[in-house]
Amino acid sequence: VARLQADPLPGLPEVRPGDDLGALLTAAAARLPGGLADGDVLAVAHKVVSKAEGRVRALADVMPGARARALAAEHGKDPRLVEVILGETAALVRADRGRLICRTHHGFVCANAGVDASNATAPDAVVLLPADPDASARALRAALRAGLGVAPAVVITDSFGRAWRMGQCETAIGCAGLAPLDDWRGRADNAGRELTATVIAVADEAAAAADLARAKASREPAVRLRGLAAHVGADDGPGAAALLRAPEDDLFA
Amino acid sequence: VARLQADPLPGLPEVRPGDDLGALLTAAAARLPGGLADGDVLAVAHKVVSKAEGRVRALADVMPGARARALAAEHGKDPRLVEVILGETAALVRADRGRLICRTHHGFVCANAGVDASNATAPDAVVLLPADPDASARALRAALRAGLGVAPAVVITDSFGRAWRMGQCETAIGCAGLAPLDDWRGRADNAGRELTATVIAVADEAAAAADLARAKASREPAVRLRGLAAHVGADDGPGAAALLRAPEDDLFA
Repeated sequence: VARLQADPLPGLPEVRPGDDLGALLTAAAARLPGGLADGDVLAVAHKVVSKAEGRVRALADVMPGARARALAAEHGKDPRLVEVILGETAALVRADRGRLICRTHHGFVCANAGVDASNATAPDAVVLLPADPDASARALRAALRAGLGVAPAVVITDSFGRAWRMGQCETAIGCAGLAPLDDWRGRADNAGRELTATVIAVADEAAAAADLARAKASREPAVRLRGLAAHVGADDGPGAAALLRAPEDDLFA
Repeated sequence: VARLQADPLPGLPEVRPGDDLGALLTAAAARLPGGLADGDVLAVAHKVVSKAEGRVRALADVMPGARARALAAEHGKDPRLVEVILGETAALVRADRGRLICRTHHGFVCANAGVDASNATAPDAVVLLPADPDASARALRAALRAGLGVAPAVVITDSFGRAWRMGQCETAIGCAGLAPLDDWRGRADNAGRELTATVIAVADEAAAAADLARAKASREPAVRLRGLAAHVGADDGPGAAALLRAPEDDLFA
């Protein structure tokens, strides 16, 4: 058995607003050899969470305001899409060449405030981030516990761009039952020296590992990670909110 | 068999300057059930690469210059350590509260220009990043090919802090044989819509996945990833240099 294993749950249907995602994941888990167990981590791409929660907007229903129209004209974007993005945005961090980098109301810094047109349910529909991804993760974990009698951790993920580096990495935006950070400060390395500044973003690394096991264009939003039991607890824990760095403490930004 | 599997190579000795790391990895791979195969990715923590390459400095031998002494006094750091950091630094991005965020000569933006005192070979010794991590990855791949008759991809990694988020993620600083980016732009999603801006930083996600399989304080610098063959090629490819975003094109920074 490998130290760490990642396997997509098979046979999830297209998810639509109002669907019971917990029940769909429970059923899909039963079709995966080995199922789900305590100590597993189930990484779920946020799109299916957002769709089940109705966090979808039809652009035809959106009336762009003055600020959205001005930004859209400046950046060559659909003013209705910009209106939806601004609704999700606490602060516009950067805007240039058609790209809007936003700090969302949750505190995530990402392109278009996480609003995405790909993999939406209908043409002209866009998918938002869940309103409270940590609460979504806790609810999914509770549903899995109720349906399966075990309580794997749940991580909800999205792909974020990064400063200084090309490409996107899958990132944890919500979690329940997984310790998001593994703090090695004060512990000794193998030469007995104290490790002074090593705090590992376990939830983000788990999101990344799950993404590698997923065929992006196929319907594999949920991936079981096995081998992270040391980071999984009975308590839901602080959630991915603990991964947000306070702006005033952020040397990197 | 899991879609993605990660397993540390067992029994690597402490690595010292001048050691033949390719030979050590070849021998360790023979002790891992299943060994190494074409299509595998071997993720190697940079520390052992740097040590084998002699990228270690004894602070006792370092004479801090005026700038290092001034920065050290301002930030409560060892002036000899700051001298080593400045030697690795193309630009000081941020300096505050004892932390120096640097753009290295390679172009990486990270704390202390990647200079690290933990897991060093001797007290008062610090480990630098490899001088050319992509070249190091190519050399290790060639050594594995010569020793094993197969050519797994090689990724060299370090843990980097990130803007906006707490904790560090393991990140690719060198690679050979692994396509560092998987560009989905222009391909269709499962509704037939074009995915407009999805470029996945596969090498960084691979580094993160490998880190989760590794016990940080034990001697497990090398991790085999199995299941990424779609991203592995016979050519060494562009290396992790392709992951560096040009500063003038960086909306996130």
